[in-house]
Amino acid sequence: MEALTIPPERTQRWYLALMAPNVKGPKYAWLDPSRLYCNQQAFKDCIEDLLQPFQNDTIDLIAGIDAMGFILGAAIANHLGKGFLTIRKEGHSCIKTNSRAYTDYTGRRKVLEMRTDVVKSGLRILMVDQWIETGGTMEAAIALIEQQGGTIAGIATICIEDSEGGKRIKEKYKCSTCIPEHLQSQFNNQYLETFKAF
Amino acid sequence: MEALTIPPERTQRWYLALMAPNVKGPKYAWLDPSRLYCNQQAFKDCIEDLLQPFQNDTIDLIAGIDAMGFILGAAIANHLGKGFLTIRKEGHSCIKTNSRAYTDYTGRRKVLEMRTDVVKSGLRILMVDQWIETGGTMEAAIALIEQQGGTIAGIATICIEDSEGGKRIKEKYKCSTCIPEHLQSQFNNQYLETFKAF
Repeated sequence: MEALTIPPERTQRWYLALMAPNVKGPKYAWLDPSRLYCNQQAFKDCIEDLLQPFQNDTIDLIAGIDAMGFILGAAIANHLGKGFLTIRKEGHSCIKTNSRAYTDYTGRRKVLEMRTDVVKSGLRILMVDQWIETGGTMEAAIALIEQQGGTIAGIATICIEDSEGGKRIKEKYKCSTCIPEHLQSQFNNQYLETFKAF
Repeated sequence: MEALTIPPERTQRWYLALMAPNVKGPKYAWLDPSRLYCNQQAFKDCIEDLLQPFQNDTIDLIAGIDAMGFILGAAIANHLGKGFLTIRKEGHSCIKTNSRAYTDYTGRRKVLEMRTDVVKSGLRILMVDQWIETGGTMEAAIALIEQQGGTIAGIATICIEDSEGGKRIKEKYKCSTCIPEHLQSQFNNQYLETFKAF
């Protein structure tokens, strides 16, 4: 499907077909969801679908995870008229931060950092990332928010894979995803063909 | 100024006072503009100010530069109802890309990558990054767009410093910044106090 084409009839989650498969081999993620952001209608529909479960909830602030979570997160913040808090990879912040070590989806040890001068007790924060695979990054981000007294209003992401960490997150928090639950439970790259059929 | 406070009267560019100074020393950027995104009114006013010069222009697509340019860029895309194209640092894209080497503001050689399946001849693209210091990153991003036949509709960023590259960019393209032109020409960290007075 052409990246910028808007189909005359948009079936549910039609925009998932815009995601691009890996053509570079096993060192890279198997899928590039970000192609869908290029299509203005896809980007809009994706954000509206992600926010639908939260429409009656109080959300004070959006937090997005470095780097791809900044895209959906900042667009959601703009859509809701809310502020946007960055949760950054180590070494980029010139300000006072709390930090939390984690293992990312490639198995590498990394550190997330978050500023200390914004989150306050009782603030309800919607967490956003592009994709949750092992859940390590998102669990570290949640720990940073909760350490500062913030409340997780929910989690919005294109997909939460059915990993141990993914399951823990889904059990504990209100989650919204674009990829339907019944597909997440059997998710692997064989399923790309399924999304192409959307 | 408290990060989430909205002043009863908002003077022009009031939100610049929300930016946070470096407290970690010379290895880091001297300023953290991203604190202003946390404040919902600041984020909104910043985006509206950045877009004001382009209100009568045709913009087909927003392009943002990894990573902080994703925040303003995606928020602007949502505000305008447009799509968002990522221009990424090397090694993150599993899809076919063009790449361009450049020297970033710290003097390090780096590479930007951009997908090849979105930009077409005649597409008018608004380029977004958080801050332009030496201009090397933005010039590489512009080269990637122009190589694929895209047209630069303009550049939106909080500040374009008065570096050689910054000057080249300002001469060649329509630019919109939050930091006023007369302050950009003498910009250095002494001027933080000036912004605090906004």
